[in-house]
Amino acid sequence: MRIVLIGFGNVGQSFARIVIKDRDWLVKNYGLEPQVTAIVDSRGSCRDDNGLNLDRVLKVKEKYGTVQKYPASVESKTSIQQIISSVEAEAVIETTPSNFENGEPGLTNIRQSLTARRHVVTSNKGPLALAMPALLELASHTRMQLRFSATVGAGTPFLTFASKCLPGEKILGIHGILNGTTNYILTRMEEASLSFQKALAEAQEKGYAERNPTNDIEGLDTAAKIVIIANWILKRRMSINQLKVTGIQEILPQRILRAKKSGTRIKLIGRLTDSEATVRPEEVPVDDPVCVPGNLNALSFSTEHAGDVTLIGRGAGGEETASAIIRDLVDIRTEYSI
Amino acid sequence: MRIVLIGFGNVGQSFARIVIKDRDWLVKNYGLEPQVTAIVDSRGSCRDDNGLNLDRVLKVKEKYGTVQKYPASVESKTSIQQIISSVEAEAVIETTPSNFENGEPGLTNIRQSLTARRHVVTSNKGPLALAMPALLELASHTRMQLRFSATVGAGTPFLTFASKCLPGEKILGIHGILNGTTNYILTRMEEASLSFQKALAEAQEKGYAERNPTNDIEGLDTAAKIVIIANWILKRRMSINQLKVTGIQEILPQRILRAKKSGTRIKLIGRLTDSEATVRPEEVPVDDPVCVPGNLNALSFSTEHAGDVTLIGRGAGGEETASAIIRDLVDIRTEYSI
Repeated sequence: MRIVLIGFGNVGQSFARIVIKDRDWLVKNYGLEPQVTAIVDSRGSCRDDNGLNLDRVLKVKEKYGTVQKYPASVESKTSIQQIISSVEAEAVIETTPSNFENGEPGLTNIRQSLTARRHVVTSNKGPLALAMPALLELASHTRMQLRFSATVGAGTPFLTFASKCLPGEKILGIHGILNGTTNYILTRMEEASLSFQKALAEAQEKGYAERNPTNDIEGLDTAAKIVIIANWILKRRMSINQLKVTGIQEILPQRILRAKKSGTRIKLIGRLTDSEATVRPEEVPVDDPVCVPGNLNALSFSTEHAGDVTLIGRGAGGEETASAIIRDLVDIRTEYSI
Repeated sequence: MRIVLIGFGNVGQSFARIVIKDRDWLVKNYGLEPQVTAIVDSRGSCRDDNGLNLDRVLKVKEKYGTVQKYPASVESKTSIQQIISSVEAEAVIETTPSNFENGEPGLTNIRQSLTARRHVVTSNKGPLALAMPALLELASHTRMQLRFSATVGAGTPFLTFASKCLPGEKILGIHGILNGTTNYILTRMEEASLSFQKALAEAQEKGYAERNPTNDIEGLDTAAKIVIIANWILKRRMSINQLKVTGIQEILPQRILRAKKSGTRIKLIGRLTDSEATVRPEEVPVDDPVCVPGNLNALSFSTEHAGDVTLIGRGAGGEETASAIIRDLVDIRTEYSI
């Protein structure tokens, strides 16, 4: 399968490393031979219709900070759109950062890829949070696959679980922790009696929080994931503006302490039921399966006959996110034999 | 899909109730219309090639303790084998109790059903614990499906999760709590400082433990599930005799207390790695996702790229188990269009 990779940060580079390492295994077990024919990063791009040498691309990226210096680089004025439409590829992997204002540049990249009849695998929540119904419709119209396992739970297959593991069972609602950054902050506020600001600073030091942590702490990241689950699993067409969202930035240590004394913990919970879609801090009993520590994610599915089923895993990380992209490619490969 | 139902206890009756309640929904969503053409219980059987009236069968069972009194009952000397081979059906559901001595009567029922070219869905762990490699081979030889989602986790789809949600990912090992009875006993020993005997008595009172609790407390039930996971998920051909199994019957309150003081809990853990397959009490840190309370089950999959992924849910219950049987039927229906 020939692939154009847009975005070559942590996730994109992790993807390249897994492809290098697992190539033989993927071919043998799934008939999947990913061949990256172009890579676009924020400062340039490179292409080779016979397949880029990924080892070499990674070295160039490390040395120069952009893939533009790769021997077979692309004329620097070439637009992403030109690359999407002119490079030989069956699939586009979109890993630019999530933008919840207008979804760009991911939104345009995904639209153009589907229109150019490329399957799309993305780890970018922005376009889906803002325009998922329209993007699903476009994919359906162009008969291309649009996959986004990596957007919810990174390597933990929350979406796949809901769509493949519960046939014949009705999902009545879901709730859980979908953001590791806020979970880490809240955990540390309790464990070490830190203020919100101190816990945030610690999370930033450890690389669990971004320098601009707004999307995480204000709940937008969780809200985007709830939107994706609503559209994909519960077939409810909605966008992020329809959610009531409260973040954790105003949580005081006293509130954490009060919760602890009553056998609960404050967690930023995303929740979807028939009647509501919310993101807000909630008190969760300590022995509830979704009450996970550190930067773990946990999502509980309420089912009609099997009761509550909860899935727990790391919700972030370059390698974890890249593994979800690989899963999506395997799925597309299995369905399309490309 | 026409079905012969063998075993009409809690699981079989729950299955009948779900079929009555969800019939229209299953037809509409999955094209699955389960039609039960015969039911066998320990004291008799009934059949109707045009489909039994399940409401009526349930009433007869409740009133007389056997389905034999159903109007269209079967000549009382008819053997199960005759019913399997003569009743019109595409599938046999086998829900007789698990027997880890010789697997009977389930083992014979499953063999004969596959040989008579019926798909088999079973909730019976005994035959699989003792002879899973042979049964899988027989199913493959007769080109029939042998499904057993209900045997591990009841309604919680541990097996489906591992086989469908992690394509392109390597499962390096698994470990977890696969028996709700022992988990309930251990939880109560800690929570209420009970002795093993008292906690067991309480579990029996609440219906969480059977009158003869040997299979649960000695670890055989967990071991059977480990065997099923080993064969199905890790493709390792093994049977229950190859496992090292230690139960919880000799756990003293002091050991529970010691663990508690060190921030852990004693849990009966089934574990599969490249080099070992064990069932034994282990100390699990309280904030480990598999450290679940009450009678919950939890299974953690160690993966190469996505880290540990843990699935938690109820591991028992008639309705929960029946929901797994429905899932298997939906899967067979989807693959075979019957």
